[in-house]
Amino acid sequence: MTDKNIKKNQNTCSLKDVLDIIGGKWAMPIIYHLSKGKMRFKELERTVEGINTRMLVKELKNMDANGIITREVFATVPPTVEYTLTNKGEKLLPSIVSLHTWGQEFTV
Amino acid sequence: MTDKNIKKNQNTCSLKDVLDIIGGKWAMPIIYHLSKGKMRFKELERTVEGINTRMLVKELKNMDANGIITREVFATVPPTVEYTLTNKGEKLLPSIVSLHTWGQEFTV
Repeated sequence: MTDKNIKKNQNTCSLKDVLDIIGGKWAMPIIYHLSKGKMRFKELERTVEGINTRMLVKELKNMDANGIITREVFATVPPTVEYTLTNKGEKLLPSIVSLHTWGQEFTV
Repeated sequence: MTDKNIKKNQNTCSLKDVLDIIGGKWAMPIIYHLSKGKMRFKELERTVEGINTRMLVKELKNMDANGIITREVFATVPPTVEYTLTNKGEKLLPSIVSLHTWGQEFTV
């Protein structure tokens, strides 16, 4: 493999990696809402339009595994779980805001 | 529905609309490559890593329908088809470059 090919693969895979992590239907809306501050599971469930419990559990687990959010459990009765954007997650915000703005300019 | 609810729905749906249009696996890599200039079908097929003919046909059709790209057919033998980003499509570039940069900072 030539240097040129290696570089080409790295460039392309990187955008693909990003889309594997946050290209789904829910990650960006969740990040967008968490940018306003930490939220509990129930709050997220109410705030992210159209999501169901199963999808939210799955997406938060992926986002935690990918270092986008942190999950904090408090020993209340019943237990409280809070989700916060990490520094890595916060750095996605400009891209998401920019996609959101594009949407407001161009889609109904 | 109160004014507050209407506003909330508009905000959230807008980001969702955007993800419906370009949130899939292929649209952003295609836009990224087309940002360097118009390309023929075969060039795109070679350049977008991992895509197959069927997916590329489908994605280009969606992107054309959504006004992201234009499709120009030339009466050569065999016919040549060229794809170009529209102004609407070009305005997605800053978001995509920003996601790409995030990927280079944070993923392998």
